[in-house]
Amino acid sequence: MSFEKLDALGHRLEALEHALSILGADEATHMAVGGGDKRAEAMSTLAGMYHAQSTAPEIADWIEAAKPETEDQKLALKEFKRSYLNATCLPTEFVERRTAATMRSEQLWRDLRAKGDWDSFLPALEGVVSLVREEAHLRADALKLAPYDALMEQYDPGNRTAQLDGVFADLKSFLKGFVPEALAVQQEKLAKRPLKPLNGPYPIEKQRELGLAAMRAVGFDFTHGSLAVSHHPFCGGVPTDVRMTTRYRTDEFLSSLMGVLHETGHALYEQGLPKSWSHWSLGKARGMGIHESQSLFVEMQLARSPEFWQFALPLVHQYLGADAIPGWDVDDVLAQVNLVERGYIRVDADEVTYPLHVILRYELEQDLINGKLEAAQIPEAWDAKMTEYLGISTINNPKDGPMQDVHWPGGAFGYFPSYTLGAMIAAQQWATLEQAQPNLRADIAKGDFTGANQWRAENIWSQASRYSTPDLITRATGEPLNAAHFKAHLKKRYL
Amino acid sequence: MSFEKLDALGHRLEALEHALSILGADEATHMAVGGGDKRAEAMSTLAGMYHAQSTAPEIADWIEAAKPETEDQKLALKEFKRSYLNATCLPTEFVERRTAATMRSEQLWRDLRAKGDWDSFLPALEGVVSLVREEAHLRADALKLAPYDALMEQYDPGNRTAQLDGVFADLKSFLKGFVPEALAVQQEKLAKRPLKPLNGPYPIEKQRELGLAAMRAVGFDFTHGSLAVSHHPFCGGVPTDVRMTTRYRTDEFLSSLMGVLHETGHALYEQGLPKSWSHWSLGKARGMGIHESQSLFVEMQLARSPEFWQFALPLVHQYLGADAIPGWDVDDVLAQVNLVERGYIRVDADEVTYPLHVILRYELEQDLINGKLEAAQIPEAWDAKMTEYLGISTINNPKDGPMQDVHWPGGAFGYFPSYTLGAMIAAQQWATLEQAQPNLRADIAKGDFTGANQWRAENIWSQASRYSTPDLITRATGEPLNAAHFKAHLKKRYL
Repeated sequence: MSFEKLDALGHRLEALEHALSILGADEATHMAVGGGDKRAEAMSTLAGMYHAQSTAPEIADWIEAAKPETEDQKLALKEFKRSYLNATCLPTEFVERRTAATMRSEQLWRDLRAKGDWDSFLPALEGVVSLVREEAHLRADALKLAPYDALMEQYDPGNRTAQLDGVFADLKSFLKGFVPEALAVQQEKLAKRPLKPLNGPYPIEKQRELGLAAMRAVGFDFTHGSLAVSHHPFCGGVPTDVRMTTRYRTDEFLSSLMGVLHETGHALYEQGLPKSWSHWSLGKARGMGIHESQSLFVEMQLARSPEFWQFALPLVHQYLGADAIPGWDVDDVLAQVNLVERGYIRVDADEVTYPLHVILRYELEQDLINGKLEAAQIPEAWDAKMTEYLGISTINNPKDGPMQDVHWPGGAFGYFPSYTLGAMIAAQQWATLEQAQPNLRADIAKGDFTGANQWRAENIWSQASRYSTPDLITRATGEPLNAAHFKAHLKKRYL
Repeated sequence: MSFEKLDALGHRLEALEHALSILGADEATHMAVGGGDKRAEAMSTLAGMYHAQSTAPEIADWIEAAKPETEDQKLALKEFKRSYLNATCLPTEFVERRTAATMRSEQLWRDLRAKGDWDSFLPALEGVVSLVREEAHLRADALKLAPYDALMEQYDPGNRTAQLDGVFADLKSFLKGFVPEALAVQQEKLAKRPLKPLNGPYPIEKQRELGLAAMRAVGFDFTHGSLAVSHHPFCGGVPTDVRMTTRYRTDEFLSSLMGVLHETGHALYEQGLPKSWSHWSLGKARGMGIHESQSLFVEMQLARSPEFWQFALPLVHQYLGADAIPGWDVDDVLAQVNLVERGYIRVDADEVTYPLHVILRYELEQDLINGKLEAAQIPEAWDAKMTEYLGISTINNPKDGPMQDVHWPGGAFGYFPSYTLGAMIAAQQWATLEQAQPNLRADIAKGDFTGANQWRAENIWSQASRYSTPDLITRATGEPLNAAHFKAHLKKRYL
């Protein structure tokens, strides 16, 4: 009986989630401009209903009394318990205080970021840091975890600094030497063979058809999803109706195409989740790191490889015209899409320099939570690490330094590591897959992604939230998360 | 305090309605084909939440104890009370029984309609009729109304057979003579000046631009709405984000354009509702008859008039090309869009014959509810009336007779009158407006709809549910609903 109550609750929560997901995707794609206020009001009311229903006190009794009858129900109960604990471990009074503070701080950040006005922003950020420290300790007490681990637990269950510190230290020490090396090799190559010019404009309708063809090729199921346009590309909706978006510029087509392939990686994960569990926590995607591993698997491992472009170059000609990129061969495309550059901005970074941006934040976040660093000291600490890791200074440039991301103004600490975990997990999955399927690269060159998709469907997508993030990685790849495969991948591609 | 509780309830219900409206519109326009089952599940769960929250027993106490402080609150309370009574007057046990029966009957109808298999469908319809009789008596007891009036009360509050019987009898007796007369005049005209051929194909993208231009011209606010494509055209969404749809065929453009103008009439009503009342019952559109009067005002009164086409013909050339309808003048368009034909199917009928289809159903429904007619006798009764009113027989053709509409299989009795009420109300509004604004027709010929829109905004749209349907009509037009203006309109247009 108790399990049935949890099951029925799952259906109610799934309906509210469904509404919120579709309304969210609709807002960014089809909503009339004047519909925003009422949409925000409706979504906030529905989110309130979701929160009230998912944190109701009687759920604790249902969980306590539930007698699961099948193995699936046992797993489902464990995940119900985990998500209930994570959702209820903060007092309502605290949640209200934090929500109000982070909303104000985020608004202030939107105003001050463009001006790079760190000094005016600092008091708000100090308030957020103080609240997040409080949150980390509240979560830590409830979950019996270290404070920063308790924050990460929201995004990637099972991730602990005890493991990640070593993996990130290894990767950092490697990249500090590798970035200059890769840049030197690149310089040499580009001297011999400069980047070729594009031959735009590329009409949006043709780019759209190319994107749809690429999605179809790598396995997107158009009976359960679609592609639209939005200002910021995303993958939203629900597993039975995935709403993917992209944006187009007409002077080039590669950024939209690579973006489409990235979001398709997310979409394949959602479409591959077990349908019969969709109303249980157990049936959701495991977490942010694993999700990012699925997008980066498609974008970085597959779609920036020479084999992919043996298949994709004719596709470009088919959809954009024979003279779309005149005289380009596969190496010209790869030189373009795999260009390495030292830059200030994380979201613009290539896969070689990106992890250094993340590790910088991971280290600063831990110090901020543990009280070793105060918000006022961030600009200097940021500059010191940027100078050390990438050889560029941000000391008088907070706009392109600690003010560049929305995460801290919004109070989202513990999230950044997931991005680089995703890149490492993707490389580790690719290595396992390549061992298991000797024809992998030949298949991809022919446009056959069946083997790669089947492996991910079995080992990742269908597993949903059955295991913690580290356990899922170990089970899929036969070894714990480590940086070796990602390092090998970078060496192979960039040296 | 009690009013505040009702006010807060209004906000919760508005959020759920918002979700249901947008999810419904999305389903018909942007949803992936495989997303239907989960969408249905989510919407049915949300509808259940809406029902539970809008019929909760404590609401009766809030209504009882509420002390409205302003005139608006007084009106709002009256409407809260009315909708609460209408929503709670059926026992849950009965609602479940009726929902199950009408769902089965509707499914059966979908299967059997194409085959015209009346005999297999009859037992299900007998069940529905028996349930609707029970419902009519339950509603009648709760609302202190006659049974059929209690059914109509759901769709057009205040409508009573005591008034409508006379109005419909008047219209019927007029139309029985007018239809042959109009057909004879038409035959004569067409003999002198036959219908001109179209010059398709008309590309969908161009038709879309023409439709958007027509919407813009008659006052649609694109900051609070949009136009998409769906199999069945509709006007859905929410007042701040109205979702209109149309469908296109490439061999002609007039059916899509007139459909767009019809739905724009609905849309203008929604966009013109008072924004500050949007979470109260009081703030919703009054009912189906008034809603239909707004769509028919635009489609029939405005957009099938000679003045409208003085303005619109150049628009057609602008968007579809100079030779889109070669050699056509305004009279050629009017001959095409105002063609009268005796037919079997209500939804395909022109404005002259349409009311006879509705009056037939209005009369049969009353007899069915009052027990003067049994379901088994419908085919003969239908045929007798079709023969008498329109001179065509349906005796061996149930598919094009009593099986043509979804209303009865779905248990919706008391709804049909609204369609023809809408046509009469629209004509009555037009007559009032024309008296008040002597330049009306000249303005329309210039494409200036400001005066017509301002009058409807003041007298209809902004009034929302402030008055019952009959009171709203009398206040707007200075006289009770009657057939005189509609009859005059038909004479002017067709003789």
